[in-house]
Amino acid sequence: MTDNRHAARKEIGDVAMGFGDDAGNVGVVRTEHVTFDQPGQELSLEGGGTLAPFTLAYETYGTLNERKDNAVLVTHALSGDAHVAGRHSPDDKRPGWWDMMIGPGKGLDTEKYFVICANVVGGCSGSTGPSSENPATGRPYGTDFPMITIKDMVNAQMLLLDHLGIDKLLAAVGGSMGGMQVLELAISHPDRAHLCVPLATAARQPTMAIAFNEVGRQAIMADPNWRGGHYYGGALPAKGLSVARMVGHITYLSDEAMEEKFGRRLQDIHDYTFTFSADFEVESYLRHQGLSFTNRFDANTYLYITRALDYFDLTRQHGTLVKAFENVKARFLVMGFSSDWLHPPYQLKEIVSALRATHKHVSYYEVESHYGHDAFLLEREKMEGIIAAFLASGAKTYQR
Amino acid sequence: MTDNRHAARKEIGDVAMGFGDDAGNVGVVRTEHVTFDQPGQELSLEGGGTLAPFTLAYETYGTLNERKDNAVLVTHALSGDAHVAGRHSPDDKRPGWWDMMIGPGKGLDTEKYFVICANVVGGCSGSTGPSSENPATGRPYGTDFPMITIKDMVNAQMLLLDHLGIDKLLAAVGGSMGGMQVLELAISHPDRAHLCVPLATAARQPTMAIAFNEVGRQAIMADPNWRGGHYYGGALPAKGLSVARMVGHITYLSDEAMEEKFGRRLQDIHDYTFTFSADFEVESYLRHQGLSFTNRFDANTYLYITRALDYFDLTRQHGTLVKAFENVKARFLVMGFSSDWLHPPYQLKEIVSALRATHKHVSYYEVESHYGHDAFLLEREKMEGIIAAFLASGAKTYQR
Repeated sequence: MTDNRHAARKEIGDVAMGFGDDAGNVGVVRTEHVTFDQPGQELSLEGGGTLAPFTLAYETYGTLNERKDNAVLVTHALSGDAHVAGRHSPDDKRPGWWDMMIGPGKGLDTEKYFVICANVVGGCSGSTGPSSENPATGRPYGTDFPMITIKDMVNAQMLLLDHLGIDKLLAAVGGSMGGMQVLELAISHPDRAHLCVPLATAARQPTMAIAFNEVGRQAIMADPNWRGGHYYGGALPAKGLSVARMVGHITYLSDEAMEEKFGRRLQDIHDYTFTFSADFEVESYLRHQGLSFTNRFDANTYLYITRALDYFDLTRQHGTLVKAFENVKARFLVMGFSSDWLHPPYQLKEIVSALRATHKHVSYYEVESHYGHDAFLLEREKMEGIIAAFLASGAKTYQR
Repeated sequence: MTDNRHAARKEIGDVAMGFGDDAGNVGVVRTEHVTFDQPGQELSLEGGGTLAPFTLAYETYGTLNERKDNAVLVTHALSGDAHVAGRHSPDDKRPGWWDMMIGPGKGLDTEKYFVICANVVGGCSGSTGPSSENPATGRPYGTDFPMITIKDMVNAQMLLLDHLGIDKLLAAVGGSMGGMQVLELAISHPDRAHLCVPLATAARQPTMAIAFNEVGRQAIMADPNWRGGHYYGGALPAKGLSVARMVGHITYLSDEAMEEKFGRRLQDIHDYTFTFSADFEVESYLRHQGLSFTNRFDANTYLYITRALDYFDLTRQHGTLVKAFENVKARFLVMGFSSDWLHPPYQLKEIVSALRATHKHVSYYEVESHYGHDAFLLEREKMEGIIAAFLASGAKTYQR
């Protein structure tokens, strides 16, 4: 089945490439779903209990070679999903969230690599999460959904690799929460990835990030439509989720990027209105970001995933960061971004130091950028050569 | 009346000092109120219209000398009020918000200076604001209150100086929004202050600060209890205001200060609860900060004052910052704080450069601190000598 599916998608992709503007891109892609409902496929959760059955939504690009040694797993951040590259239809206006990095000749070259991305468990874009039906009640889980951790997300993705027939990835690559998954994968499943590329992330969620997440959660839970998390079928806690997204969004930008992108420019007016309207472009932008987020994202998933982020702490789990990395086998490329104040470079360097202290292969690369945390989603030119070279040279040392 | 009041307070202060723990402090103080309701005392507002009558709440410490050349105006920040020093009763647990800086022998030495602080117009701590009675309706203004700007706040305080018989201040001192008032005072009323000390502030509200303020406003306006701003007498939009305060509070701290103060410490538990409870100390702290703020602050005032902050832009008002300062007569001490990311030192240096470009007396001092924006409220030792020396030497050149 796997082979047919890939073939079918490649065909659609080729058609899309016929449109011209998709040259160099993966073309039209489709989200697949796999449900784990067999004995042994229960997801044992770090916080207790199990999740079964559960579904993962995922996409793949490129072709898995016969040796099955060219698979690259991309892990997504808080608001991401499985749709990391390509378009869902020829006239789809927005490509996947990391399309700049994935495609023929790009940083993750789909002519060489078989790229996989899955929506995390707990998500709201096709994988089982709080908005999914609870088999025990026939209604959406809501806050009866069990708490999910980064480790749980990774364990779920290992079942997906099994399903795809991949013993060992060539590489796992991800930024922000995706980077935490990459670190966790290297530690919990040392035999399943040869290379690891964590970007713009940390070995433990920093205090300030917990604080901003807590603001978002309080905004959602303060929305009367949230109703203890059992709002499905009724009015959604859209205002709360919108505020949560607005505050999150600010943390993804830098002071400099905001000055440059918006400054104090007014929105369609020549003078202050002296009202509470969105006089400033930045206000209008944030309101739009907040509102449009509510059309595609579930408020409970926002609560669960931010909680998973906040609970992430390799030091707590293992005693010290050096101990955490003791049994790691993967080779690392760690990337920080100069103006990222959510995960400043020092947090990446902590990972590098701990890996070095336990004599692992690790390179550190700091991208000069004024885009803030979002830089890992934007700085194509500054990143793709480095990542491509790391994968190409790493591929030579791949062994099972 | 003024003299009697001062004498009376000094007496109460002496009694309080008898308790021992208030030695070196201003003792027990009282908030005074003055209502401007005479012809010529209408407040013409920058956004249009007038406010009349209006009341200012204020406190004073020390004694105005006969020459009336020892008055120091302290201007407060977003959540401040007139109660800047001392205690309201002998068993009052919390002193005024800048008590560390004001008192006998302190940075603003009340044995030398007559220190004044007024709640800004638009405020909710005794001065006329949205929660005050609208004389046209007999009900609280709510969002019928006119928009207030930093310039309006300053103009109102000039009427207070008239009332106190003070032509020209020795100094105006304030941090954050207080610093904006100090800059505005120097520009709009060049003959009314000899020295100006703006701290942790900017000549125009930066984009990121607008963005965070907009999050706070949206959180308040999303609260169904806000009811378009006409909530007085009913349930308050406390949840919205609490979220606004939480996000504001984070911007006053630094990454480093948060790591140091809270880190990832858990609150009264040994392990994660795997719930949405406040597992982390930082969550518990923010929830408490948010909640306790709603007991003392009005949500509409939060809307109005953040708007005043966002509208502040000396460049827009005057064309360039150099032009803005052209007619300034005051001598400046500008202070920045190394870890302040709401108003990073470069924003203070812009003020200094513009003042220098138009040949004004200006000194810049950068305080090394990891407390973030809040540093100006905390770094007593690093600030008071500098400020005391600037006032003492400046006093020698005071003339009307």
